[in-house]
Amino acid sequence: MTNTLQTIKILAFDVFGTVVDWRSSVIAEGERLGKSKGLEVDWAAFADAWRALYRPYMDRVGNGRIPWIKLDDLHRQMLEETLVKFEIDCLSEEEIDDFNRAWHRLKPWRDSIPGLQRLKSRFVITTLSNGNISLLTNMAKHGGLPWDCILSAENVKRYKPDPEVYLLVPQLFDLNPEQVMMVAAHEPDLRSARKHGLRTAYVHRPAEHGPGKAPPLPANERYDIVATDFVDLAQRLCV
Amino acid sequence: MTNTLQTIKILAFDVFGTVVDWRSSVIAEGERLGKSKGLEVDWAAFADAWRALYRPYMDRVGNGRIPWIKLDDLHRQMLEETLVKFEIDCLSEEEIDDFNRAWHRLKPWRDSIPGLQRLKSRFVITTLSNGNISLLTNMAKHGGLPWDCILSAENVKRYKPDPEVYLLVPQLFDLNPEQVMMVAAHEPDLRSARKHGLRTAYVHRPAEHGPGKAPPLPANERYDIVATDFVDLAQRLCV
Repeated sequence: MTNTLQTIKILAFDVFGTVVDWRSSVIAEGERLGKSKGLEVDWAAFADAWRALYRPYMDRVGNGRIPWIKLDDLHRQMLEETLVKFEIDCLSEEEIDDFNRAWHRLKPWRDSIPGLQRLKSRFVITTLSNGNISLLTNMAKHGGLPWDCILSAENVKRYKPDPEVYLLVPQLFDLNPEQVMMVAAHEPDLRSARKHGLRTAYVHRPAEHGPGKAPPLPANERYDIVATDFVDLAQRLCV
Repeated sequence: MTNTLQTIKILAFDVFGTVVDWRSSVIAEGERLGKSKGLEVDWAAFADAWRALYRPYMDRVGNGRIPWIKLDDLHRQMLEETLVKFEIDCLSEEEIDDFNRAWHRLKPWRDSIPGLQRLKSRFVITTLSNGNISLLTNMAKHGGLPWDCILSAENVKRYKPDPEVYLLVPQLFDLNPEQVMMVAAHEPDLRSARKHGLRTAYVHRPAEHGPGKAPPLPANERYDIVATDFVDLAQRLCV
């Protein structure tokens, strides 16, 4: 580890895709729901279609076209659009609400908890996600994620990649941005974090988007750390 | 437990005095500092004088006389006033800063962690304190407090007893106020929480202000629960 990395105090984690496997979790919840309702649906295609609306819906808030609303509410609107697309019209309000809360119950990748446990012994570990505070809290409780702190886009009522989200962590903890490391499986998130002075760790999640859709592993020199998973990240940071 | 209590989803905890023993912790840090600097000071009197400034300083923010600043910064101003009062002028900026962070290192009461562990198995447990987010996060890490979530007056930039602080929890978690229970060792905090619709649990902390200064135990009917400590609280709530 280089000397500059030794000044890091806090690791701030992207969550969807980086810590938890949203796709398999949403597919499993869809399959369970489909079975109970007698629906014939390609739930993998459904999960992908639901998630594909994430960026365009979020950008409506980012662009100021609509006022701030939390991710639960965006997820709900995206779900309604996806249900129409898949011609599913037999769900009650309660069933739609419950399915929407699948995002509160996403399962961690197998290495997430052991890696976080080790990292927690040396750093403050916090979420830094577009997910709302209750979503992240419920997810941690459901999946056993040992966060020291739950921080969210909701704290500043702006979504990543707005600067306020990245700068929240150094501001709250009276640190310089370079004492905070953003951990994510997505290069745009890391590039934005770096633009605002944070250190960056890329973690490879080849299965995030399903079979045959692994992003290429970026070159080592592109980020402060390029890790294969959270255990690898812990081994490089906890030396 | 009455039926109404069975709808409770989240316990929101006052922290200073309720979860941690601020007085003994600050005295111990003062004694350590005094020894290293060769100071002869009554550190119990010092701790009490420092804490006595809490309400008046906080009221300056509450009244709008000064703009929002976080508790770390109020603590620092209160500390400087207390150092003058005790004629201590030999501390470096760094030593004052470190002493001010004694509030990040307060020790839990002996029953706090076992009680919280048990309550956590049934409820979401969160801080709801005037302490800032970094203070509460560092304190939890230092003392091993197993919060699901760190919520603070800092989330709304208002101090208790302003309504925004109490209403933060039901708002974030999409709950009715009566699904949230405020836990505190201080009756004014509980009365404010109840005014805004929250359920209330009083926990007795007879040693908070030192020997011979135990507040009387309130009558059982005054709050939804009157408990002798966190283990007692857990026994009543986790039935």
